[in-house]
Order: sequence, then C-alpha cells, then structure tokens
Amino acid sequence: MPVRMGMAGGSEGAFIGEIHRAAARLDGEIELVCGAFSSDPEVSQRTGAKLGLRPDRAYRSWKEMLAREAALPADARMQFVSIVTPNDLHFPIATQALESGFHVLSDKPATCTLDEIRLLAQTLARGNRCYALTHTYLGYPMVVEARARVLEGSIGTVRRVTIEYSQGWLAAAVESQGNRQAQWRTDPQRAGAGGSIGDIGVHAFNLAEYVAGAHVTELCAELGTSVAGRRLDDHAAAFLRFGNGAHGTLMVSQISAGEENDLIVGVYGETGGVHWSHRDPNSLRLLAIGGGERMLRAGNNVGELHATTRALCRTPAGHPEGFIEAFANLYRMFASDVRAVEAGSTMLLSSPAPIAAALRGMYFIDAMVRSHGAGQHWVTLDADWERTSI
Amino acid sequence: MPVRMGMAGGSEGAFIGEIHRAAARLDGEIELVCGAFSSDPEVSQRTGAKLGLRPDRAYRSWKEMLAREAALPADARMQFVSIVTPNDLHFPIATQALESGFHVLSDKPATCTLDEIRLLAQTLARGNRCYALTHTYLGYPMVVEARARVLEGSIGTVRRVTIEYSQGWLAAAVESQGNRQAQWRTDPQRAGAGGSIGDIGVHAFNLAEYVAGAHVTELCAELGTSVAGRRLDDHAAAFLRFGNGAHGTLMVSQISAGEENDLIVGVYGETGGVHWSHRDPNSLRLLAIGGGERMLRAGNNVGELHATTRALCRTPAGHPEGFIEAFANLYRMFASDVRAVEAGSTMLLSSPAPIAAALRGMYFIDAMVRSHGAGQHWVTLDADWERTSI
Amino acid sequence: MPVRMGMAGGSEGAFIGEIHRAAARLDGEIELVCGAFSSDPEVSQRTGAKLGLRPDRAYRSWKEMLAREAALPADARMQFVSIVTPNDLHFPIATQALESGFHVLSDKPATCTLDEIRLLAQTLARGNRCYALTHTYLGYPMVVEARARVLEGSIGTVRRVTIEYSQGWLAAAVESQGNRQAQWRTDPQRAGAGGSIGDIGVHAFNLAEYVAGAHVTELCAELGTSVAGRRLDDHAAAFLRFGNGAHGTLMVSQISAGEENDLIVGVYGETGGVHWSHRDPNSLRLLAIGGGERMLRAGNNVGELHATTRALCRTPAGHPEGFIEAFANLYRMFASDVRAVEAGSTMLLSSPAPIAAALRGMYFIDAMVRSHGAGQHWVTLDADWERTSI
Amino acid sequence: MPVRMGMAGGSEGAFIGEIHRAAARLDGEIELVCGAFSSDPEVSQRTGAKLGLRPDRAYRSWKEMLAREAALPADARMQFVSIVTPNDLHFPIATQALESGFHVLSDKPATCTLDEIRLLAQTLARGNRCYALTHTYLGYPMVVEARARVLEGSIGTVRRVTIEYSQGWLAAAVESQGNRQAQWRTDPQRAGAGGSIGDIGVHAFNLAEYVAGAHVTELCAELGTSVAGRRLDDHAAAFLRFGNGAHGTLMVSQISAGEENDLIVGVYGETGGVHWSHRDPNSLRLLAIGGGERMLRAGNNVGELHATTRALCRTPAGHPEGFIEAFANLYRMFASDVRAVEAGSTMLLSSPAPIAAALRGMYFIDAMVRSHGAGQHWVTLDADWERTSI
Repeated sequence: MPVRMGMAGGSEGAFIGEIHRAAARLDGEIELVCGAFSSDPEVSQRTGAKLGLRPDRAYRSWKEMLAREAALPADARMQFVSIVTPNDLHFPIATQALESGFHVLSDKPATCTLDEIRLLAQTLARGNRCYALTHTYLGYPMVVEARARVLEGSIGTVRRVTIEYSQGWLAAAVESQGNRQAQWRTDPQRAGAGGSIGDIGVHAFNLAEYVAGAHVTELCAELGTSVAGRRLDDHAAAFLRFGNGAHGTLMVSQISAGEENDLIVGVYGETGGVHWSHRDPNSLRLLAIGGGERMLRAGNNVGELHATTRALCRTPAGHPEGFIEAFANLYRMFASDVRAVEAGSTMLLSSPAPIAAALRGMYFIDAMVRSHGAGQHWVTLDADWERTSI
Repeated sequence: MPVRMGMAGGSEGAFIGEIHRAAARLDGEIELVCGAFSSDPEVSQRTGAKLGLRPDRAYRSWKEMLAREAALPADARMQFVSIVTPNDLHFPIATQALESGFHVLSDKPATCTLDEIRLLAQTLARGNRCYALTHTYLGYPMVVEARARVLEGSIGTVRRVTIEYSQGWLAAAVESQGNRQAQWRTDPQRAGAGGSIGDIGVHAFNLAEYVAGAHVTELCAELGTSVAGRRLDDHAAAFLRFGNGAHGTLMVSQISAGEENDLIVGVYGETGGVHWSHRDPNSLRLLAIGGGERMLRAGNNVGELHATTRALCRTPAGHPEGFIEAFANLYRMFASDVRAVEAGSTMLLSSPAPIAAALRGMYFIDAMVRSHGAGQHWVTLDADWERTSI
Repeated sequence: MPVRMGMAGGSEGAFIGEIHRAAARLDGEIELVCGAFSSDPEVSQRTGAKLGLRPDRAYRSWKEMLAREAALPADARMQFVSIVTPNDLHFPIATQALESGFHVLSDKPATCTLDEIRLLAQTLARGNRCYALTHTYLGYPMVVEARARVLEGSIGTVRRVTIEYSQGWLAAAVESQGNRQAQWRTDPQRAGAGGSIGDIGVHAFNLAEYVAGAHVTELCAELGTSVAGRRLDDHAAAFLRFGNGAHGTLMVSQISAGEENDLIVGVYGETGGVHWSHRDPNSLRLLAIGGGERMLRAGNNVGELHATTRALCRTPAGHPEGFIEAFANLYRMFASDVRAVEAGSTMLLSSPAPIAAALRGMYFIDAMVRSHGAGQHWVTLDADWERTSI
Repeated sequence: MPVRMGMAGGSEGAFIGEIHRAAARLDGEIELVCGAFSSDPEVSQRTGAKLGLRPDRAYRSWKEMLAREAALPADARMQFVSIVTPNDLHFPIATQALESGFHVLSDKPATCTLDEIRLLAQTLARGNRCYALTHTYLGYPMVVEARARVLEGSIGTVRRVTIEYSQGWLAAAVESQGNRQAQWRTDPQRAGAGGSIGDIGVHAFNLAEYVAGAHVTELCAELGTSVAGRRLDDHAAAFLRFGNGAHGTLMVSQISAGEENDLIVGVYGETGGVHWSHRDPNSLRLLAIGGGERMLRAGNNVGELHATTRALCRTPAGHPEGFIEAFANLYRMFASDVRAVEAGSTMLLSSPAPIAAALRGMYFIDAMVRSHGAGQHWVTLDADWERTSI
C-alpha cells in the first residue's frame, strides 16, 4: 500500500509544488490524498480538483487540513504532510502536524529562526514521528557515492572542502516585477533572516557537511546585496573550519547573471579528492594524488559503485537521471522511514537530512548573519544547545 | 481523471517495465489498472500484487487481459495497453488489442516483419484507435527543439545527417551467461531479423529522420557480428540518401566495450548545424557557418526555446531532466491523444512516433538486411506499399 | 647543433607554412637556413627576408634551392627539406630532393597518384635518406598513449574502429570567393583525385591504423559533393575491414557547417576501448567492459603514462599543449632521425609516419575512389606491390 | 632581426626555464644569446652548451652576465634579461639589469617584499627601459577576449568576480622528499612572505583584476597550511572589494590532491557574465541574463572575436593552442615593446603585466598576509604610495 501524503502549499503555478508531487508519484510508493495548497481557499480547492482529489480533502487552510485529517480513521488519513510553503509557515505547520500525530517532510530551511528550530526539535523529541528535510542534492546517487568514498578513506584524511552554488535568476529586481518566487524569498518576514543563504546557502552547507562527513564548527562570513532596494542578501561567502581540522570555503550567489543552478562540491584529503557538479550529476570525478583520474558514472548496473548508490539509481549507466529522480529518492526514503516507524521500528532511519541536519542548517544561517553583522569575525556555530537539550 | 493503462510484459526484474511504469506515473495523468506482466502466470500475479493491483486484474496471459478487460464497463476497463514484451509479441498483442477496441502504445520495433507491420497498419486503419511507439529520444525537449530549428530553416537546406549509437553491453557473450535481456535480443525467433539494428538501430534511424525532417529513401548497409556464436548482428553501419537530396551516415554498435548508451545526432545545412548528444541531453549545440556556437539549454523558463519545447520541460534551466522524463513525455502525449480520440477529435495527434514511424522503422530493418545480404548494394526503402495501401 | 632545414612552399599568408616553422623552432633543435617559399620568386624572396634569411638563400624556385644547396659545403647546406606546397608538387620536389641527397619531411598526401608514391618509394629505397609525412595527429601524446594501450592488450583483441573527421569551412563555395586554400584543394590538377579524402581523409585513415595497430585491407566507400560546381568530393564515408578481422567506419566531411576541426577516434576490443577527441587533446578516455572509465591526462609528470608518451610532453599535467606542439613533436622526431642516419645508424627511425604510411595513405585514396566509382563495391587496398617491389 | 635575450636562472631540469625558452623561440622574434642559468657555475655552463650558446656567453653568475654583456657592443649584447630564478633573486637581478641598461622580463611575483617592488619601480622610473611580468594567463586569447567583452559593456556594470586556482602537487610534503621546485617555494627566505599566494595567488589576483577591468581596494583573507612542517601557506581564500563597487571571492590551493592546474574565473555584471576555465582554454562562455549561452572559440579566423584577440591566435578555430603559446604571446608582446622603446617610442606598451601589475601583485601579497595576521580583518591594499611616489 502506498504511504498517504498530504501537502501544504504548492498550488498550481508554484514551481516546486509540482516537482514534489512528481517526485512523490515516481516510484508508486506514495499517494497524495489531501492538500491545503494555498492560503487562498479557492485556489487550494481548484488545485485539489485538478489533481483529482476528492473535494472534501482539498482543504481551505493547513489548519483545517490537520484538524480534519486527524479526525479520519487511521487507515484513511494522511500519514505525513509535505510542507512546500514559503519559509515562515514551515515552523507552525510542522509543529502542529507533529503534535497532531503526522510525520513531516519539509522544504528547507526548516524554520525562520534558531528559536523555532529548537522548539521544533523538542516537539519532535516528545513524539515518535519522522521528520526530514528535502535537501534535494542528497538524493543524487553520485553525491551518496562521494560521501561513501570519503567515509571509507579513499581520499585519506579530509583537509579541504570547497562548495560553490551559483544562480543568476535574481540578477534583476524581479521581486518588483511580479515574480512571486522572488517576492517572498526577498522578504525578511516570509523568508527569515537569510536571502541567498537561506534559499541556496543551506543546500550548499548541507551538501558540504554531508560529503565531507564532518561538521563545520566555526565560520567567517560576508553577505552582500547587489540589487538596489533588495532587503536580503543575494550573495554570500564564508571561510569554514571543520571539527576534524579541515578548512573550507563556501560561495553562493543568486546574481551571477546567466548561470542557471550550478552547484559544485569538492572534498580533498591527504591522498585524493572527490569532485561533483550538478551540471553533470551522473558523473563523479575521483582523483588521486599521483594522477589517475577516474570518472565514476551512475547506473543500477555499475559494479564499482556502492550497493547503496546503485539502489538509488533506476536506470543502467548512460540513461541519465536528474533533479526529479533525486527528489524522488528523498521521498522514497522518507516513505520507507514512515513505514518503519509505524511498524514499530526504533532503528536509525534512512532520510539523509533528519532533524539534526535541520538544526545545523539553522545554525549555519544564524552564524552567517552573526559573522557578517560583526564585520567578518569568526563565530562558532551555536550547536551547544543541541548537545545539552535534546 | 487519469487515463487507464494496462501493461503487457514488464514483470519484476525486467528493466524496461519499471521505467515505463515510472514514466506513466510521473505526471499523474495515467493510472495502471491491470497487467499481464509475464508469460509465467505466477510471475504476472506476483508482479501485479507488488504494484498494488487488485488480484483479478493481474492476468495470467495477455489474451486473458484483453478478453476480460473488454468485458468490463467502459468507465472501468483499461483504455490503452502498453506493450513492453520481447519483439515477437508486439504484433499479436497490438493487433488483438486494436481489434478489441483498445489503444496501443508499443515498444519498438513495431513488429518482427514487414508483413506484420503492414497488417497492423491495416488493422489500425479500420478503427479509430491510437497507436504509437515509445521512441524514447523523441521525448527529449532538446531533440524537439533541434527539429524545430531545422524545420524553420535555421541551418538552411539540410545536406548532411550523422547518427551514431554506441553501447558496450553486448561486447561479451552475455546471452549465454544468463542475461535475459540479451537472450531474446539475440534470438531471431523473438527479436526478428535485426539484432542491433532492431534494438537500437531503429531508434537511431527514427531520430535521424525526426530531426532532419526528411525521409531516407535509399541506403547501403553492412551488418556484422563480433561475438562468436551470436546469431544476429551486434553492429551495423549504413550510407543514407534522403528524399530531399541530403546524404547521411548511420552507425550502431552494441559491442563498443565500455561505452554506455551514447547516441549522437548531427544535422548540417547550408548555413549551420544542430548537434545533440544523449550524454548531455539538456543541451543543444546550435552552429553557424561563420562561427558563433550557441548552447541552447532545456528549461521551462528559457525564453529562446520554442513553446512546444518548454512544454516538455518540468523544471527551469539548470535542473536536469533525463531518460524517465523523456519517456514520460511520450506517455503524456499518448494519454492526451487517447483523451482526444475518445472525445471524438479527428485532429492530428501529438505522439511523435505514430504508425507512420512504425512503418518506417520496419522499412529500415528490412532495407538494412536486404542491402547487407546483397553485399552492400544500395536498396530502396520499401515504402511504396504505404503510398498505395493505407 | 640544430639540424638545418630548407622549406618548399609556405610563403607569408599561407596558414600552414608558419605553423610548420613555429613547430620547427619550438624545441630549438632545427634551424631554417633556406627556402623556396612560393612559385612567385618575389614572394619567395620577400618571405625569406621577413624570416631573417640571407638573401642568397631565399630562392626563386625549389629547383634552384635544391641545386644551389647541394653545391654548398656539407656543413652549411640544408640537411632536409620540409615540403608544404600544394599536393601536386610533393612528388617532384621530394624525388629531386632525395636524389640530391636531402632528407624529406613532406605534408600529406605524399603524392597525387599511386604511381607517383611507388616511384618515390623506389627512389627512397635506393638511397639512405629519411622520409616522413607530417601526420599531425600522431604527434599528440595521448594518441601515442592510445596506441600503446591498444598494443599492450589493455582493451583485448581489437574488434571495432571508428573514426570521424568533421570540418565546416567548405560548406560554402569559398573556392570561388578568393580563398586560396580552398582553390587548390578543390582542383583535381593540384590536389589529386581526392578532395576531402585527400585533405583530411588520409589523416583519419592514418590515425585509425595507427591507434588500432592494424591495417585496413578492404573498404567500401561513398564520396559526395554537396556544394554545386565543386569538382572534388567534400565528404565521404567508408566501411572498413582490417587485416586482424576487426571492422570499422570512417566518416569525413568538410561541409559540416559550424564544425571546426573535430577528429574523433575510438578503438574497441573484447574487454575495453580507447576514445580520443581533438577537441580535448590532452585527455584520453580509457574504457573497460564492466564500467570503470579512466581519464588519462597528458603531462611530463604523469606516472601512469608510458615513458614514450611523457617524452612527448613539454609541460606537467594541467598545462595544455596543442596543435603546434603536436607538429613540433613530429619535427623533433624527424630531426632525431636525420641526426641518427647521418651518424650512420641503421636502426629503426622514430618518425611515426614514414614511407610505409605514405604508401598506405595513397592506397587509401585510390581505394576510396575505386570503390565509389564502382558504386560502393568492396575493394582491396592495393598493397601487393609494396610486398613485392621494395 | 630578432631581439636578443639573456636568461637568469632556468638550468637544465628546471621546468619553467625550458618553457620560457620554447615560448621565446616559438615566433622567431627572439634569440637567446646568453645566460646565467644557475648559481652553480658549472651547471650554468653546461646548460649554455646544451643550448648551443658560445662558451663565453654562458656565465658563471648573473652579476658576471650583466657586467660582461654591458661591455659588449650595442648591436651584440643582450637587449633584455628574462628572470626565471627563485623569487628572492628577482629584485636584485631586475634592479641591477635596469641600472645596466637592460630591459627586464621577470617571473612573478616581482619581488619578495613591498619595499623591494617600490624601489624597483623607482629604479624603473628613472630610466626608459621596459619591464614586465610573465603573468601567463594574460597571454591566452580568450582571456583577452573576456576582458574586451567586459570593458565594452557586454555584461553590464560588473558586480561580482570569482576566481579559483587549484593545484594538488603540494598535497604531500614533497619539499622534504627532494623536490627542488617545492623546496624554494616553501622557504620564506627564497619565496618571500607568501607560499601559495605568492606562487599562484598573484596569478589569480592579476587575472581577476585584468578580466574585471577593475582594482581590488580591500580584502579580508585567511591563509592556511595543511601539510605538517610546512613554513608557508599552501592554501588561501579572500573576500574582495573592488573600486567600482563590485565584490568578489578568491580561492587558491596547492593541496587539492589530484587537481592539476585548474584556474577558473567568472565575472558577472548586471546583464550577463563571462566564464573561462584553463582546462578548456580555447573556449569562453558568454552568458546573458535571459539565457542564451554562447561559446566563443579561439581562432585567427573567427570573425566574432576582437581583432586584438585574433592577433594572439596562430591557428584557425579547432586547432588548439595552449600554455606555451600563451607564454609566447607575452614574449612576443615584450619583444615588440623592446623594439618600440629602442626605436624611441614613448607610446603605451603592449605587455599586459607591466610594473603597475607588479606593484599590485605585491600589494596583494602584503594585504593577504596583513589581513590574515590580524585574524581576518579587512585591510586596504597599500596603493597610496603608488599614487604619490612614481
């Protein structure tokens, strides 16, 4: 039986909502049973109708959705809610969903503030529900392979991590030209304290820690705004220090005019490196100190990949998979987690971006803002709370 | 309401069956309602159960499926059957499905022989059902864009067409090592007269004609078998002449050890060219005689693309789509055709590989075999029948 | 002491003359001491002056050059002549130069006819002078590495060879628009019987045999002319059979509008393949049947390369070398051969395209023309003469 | 007549010396007439002999070379000295050469300290000799094209500059394993205050300013040393502020194990961007805000390039040029400057890295060290002196 999903946000016209739904559908393990797709009740109902939902399960608001679904029989109500709203609604919806007994799969960043994510983590800790973020890039098989190679020691002790995420779509002041995606992302009330760092910086940070298998402990950052009148950062950079002694750099930009969505990560150890670029996501460069570059390629038939990597591939080598498949891998893993928890499992779950990653993403945003506010001082990621409070 | 699909073939373990199902699911416009997934009744039923079908709609044979589904109420029975069996079953299933009133979406090649495709075309002509092939590569947005650029004259009168399709998976005698995919593909009883030319050659031929917007009228071919004991060709090459005066070359190989699934097409006119490679499917090189290479990139937000191209993109530029999305575009177009026909439309349908392409694919295989048999003589594609008989 | 070179052809304005001179200068082992740079005596002398030659060694004709240089003291006269004229002069200059005691480094194709190359081979056999062709692509380190990998068995027994050489500069009728390079190349009196096959086809053929380490014994070819009024082929294709049982395809075009100078060779054996493209000449893809693509990179510090490959690199990995360096490697090897022969060596020489390659190139052109003339029949490369006559 | 060059440093075995000589030879406009190739007199003389120099012009020391050459007749003595020694000798040799009336072409960084470069600039200002640095990457045609596109406004007002230079050759402690290149580069006495920033950081900085057409005014930097026992930085990063309001980031590393020599620069303006990578140096990506990526390609026949760019190309498009050709372009421009000055010209010279660039490189190193020493504070590049003193 498919796992039953409800959706908060993602009305017709919102780019990312349909991507989420396609990803959820792809493997046939998840069924969309309800949604509150918009803050406009009519839009929500119209979206539900288009998606083939029964009218009584296209809700007028997320609050209504949570209340009504909770009242349905256990074998009918949604099992998890996928939150794809602007950032300011992530926290209230996730909190109330968890309290109502639903699992939560949320878009990033997890919340708007550090206080919120801490409260959310405490809420989560009181129950036994699943929570994960859709950090898309962790769904790419060759990113998983990169991490596996690093963790097994293929490149030696990690010394250096570089991450760069470049987009160009905010090079003009599109938020004042009717672009709704840009409007809320540049509005501190709806996006939180981070502009580019909240929108793409957390992806970059998350990917860097994931592939390196290490945590950033300190950073020194500069944020900037290149477009006149914009209220949040549209580019940023940071020096990073990792707990294991490695150093790194992080660069994000949404004003690199003409660039699309270029995310590049490199992790270098004492004897080699891994290098992955989103522009060619089915390849992974594996480097060694004396030369000998290998090009690992995705594919469920590629013997030299880890079994865990192959399991994330739907096609043999040479049949490219992409963004939706990466997303679908996250959905598939989350559905598996939901099934496991509902079956009573207390094992470690498979979602690669659980609450720990959600917390770290918010530490990152907070640290970036603090470091920049102090004039590019080194600041410590505020992770102490985590160690003492949950 | 989703269009209701049944499936013939594609049991668990068959690579391509699950790809078809994922593609059918992706856009939420198609529902799998039944299937005869294997010639082994038990395997078929087990597959159906895994896919969540009701037991009474996981049939023991395709004949049973067609008979039983036809007996169901019109609003419950499958509307089309997707045929993903070995080649020898394409013809009987498609014929009987059409005669039973079902639309047919079939894997390529359409049939095993020229006689069969002619009979099938006549059967089709007697009814008003949809028929199309899943020529995957026509589902890639940048292939559609390439054709549009050629047709609108961007490169001038077409002079030269090059197509190359290289795989390496048949470099060893895997058909005698338990590889089921290889077994039937190298068995003339099940695959038809063509080995590599039937498996990948028809894709190459179809893509060449599609992008060039012109028909091959004559060819001179050589087929070859590199692996001892193999009964069908595992590589082939041909010189091509097109109706519009253009010339071309076609090369296919399944014994290029280490190559994955590399399909490359180039079409050159008097003033420029288009060049597309499956290894980077979201890019299209657009060339001009005096220099000035442009790299067109896929994306639903890319203004310089044709609207028809953008409509085949689910993501903005920089968010790669791949093989499953290309397949899904074919399914989406076919579902749209089914809906249109059932609503009484007599308009031209949207599927890019309709019966005409199915006929041409079989003319191609027939001509390749004839030319090779005659010792690399030029032969005419046997298309006269088409002009007089349907 | 540098080896002393004279040059026939290559006046100011002729693209390839200056490339040859730069290549000869690069390693400091060759000194240009004289030249007959043009059929126009004034142009020849002006070119000599610009190049800093003494006026008495900028000759009015190649005949004068050969006569006068032969009369100079042995330690002053040129040791070899580099022939960079249009094709029709290759034979007479080479013949007379050899007869006058000079070594000969010649542009390809070696001569205009099969009779000529046979005479030239006999002339050469009567003396002990060096003769080699400047088959540029054999000077690329990664081409040399590709051959070495094939010969040592890295890819198993060779089965398949693909070679493609695409240019676009003859897509328009530039020979009637004042382009001198195009004029003689499309004139049968000056170019010989081959247009594209003589200009770039021999490069492709030579490269295919070199990397595969095997000889083509038969071929079946089509030549074509796409530009109205042109008198020689501007594109061609062939099926190839090799002496070792391998098959192959060859495609050349000078009317692929917008392409630059794209030469791609692939050689596939039972267990793997090598793949090299001139667009990225410092890389070599090394493929294996079970996946595991390696990217070998040029560099004099790259331990995994053969020593002979490293010796052809002037820079460490990551410092790209190109066309002129490849040419310079041929000059360097020829200079080494000249020194060895003049010192009395009777060992095998190092130039990768000696008279044997010159003969084979002419067999190729002859066979292409014969096969096409016969309507794409298989023809045998006329190599018997070679086995019996020299 | 070729311009006469002497060389300081570059004995046999020193990688860069032979590169310089090959570059000087390539275009036939420069003649090596003398040298002091090593601090070991015997090595110097042996190198001179190998290079074919007269014994009396292979000097035992650079001081001897300057004294003896100055005593030769004006039409015989060297006109300029090329300095390719370790960094600590750049200043004394350049100073004394200028004072002796020779022009100076020097490797980077110009000197070891800020005081030294200021003294050198004053020495230079007192005479009328040419001085330039061999900032290799400014010799690449597509770098020159990138700058031209930026300066003419093709990408709008510049906002963002990213530069990354990654090598891996210092990932191990090769300085203690006999690698002479590494020994002096990691020795503060010979290299100066900068390790990676002096060796490759100045290249990156210089390239960033050159392509952006703007000066860095402030920076905030972190230096690091990853290899135990190493005495200088082996990686570094910086935030940059440009005088025109643009921001930027700079990253250099010599411990990115497995990377070769990857230098990537991106400059983004309000309406587009340029992006160049040393791994594919003959291409330039030209980006526009609404999509429409163009791939400009090097070639002396490419009409869409600026004439100044074409003049730096020796080959038509598709015939790759590389590192040595880039170097040779710098030598060619310097030779032209020498000729012009000796002919009395007072015009602006063509060398792209004159004393102004040399000063800026030292400001950069100084600022990087100061910023890092202060704990990643913003520091101003100390350019005031320049405005008041020369």
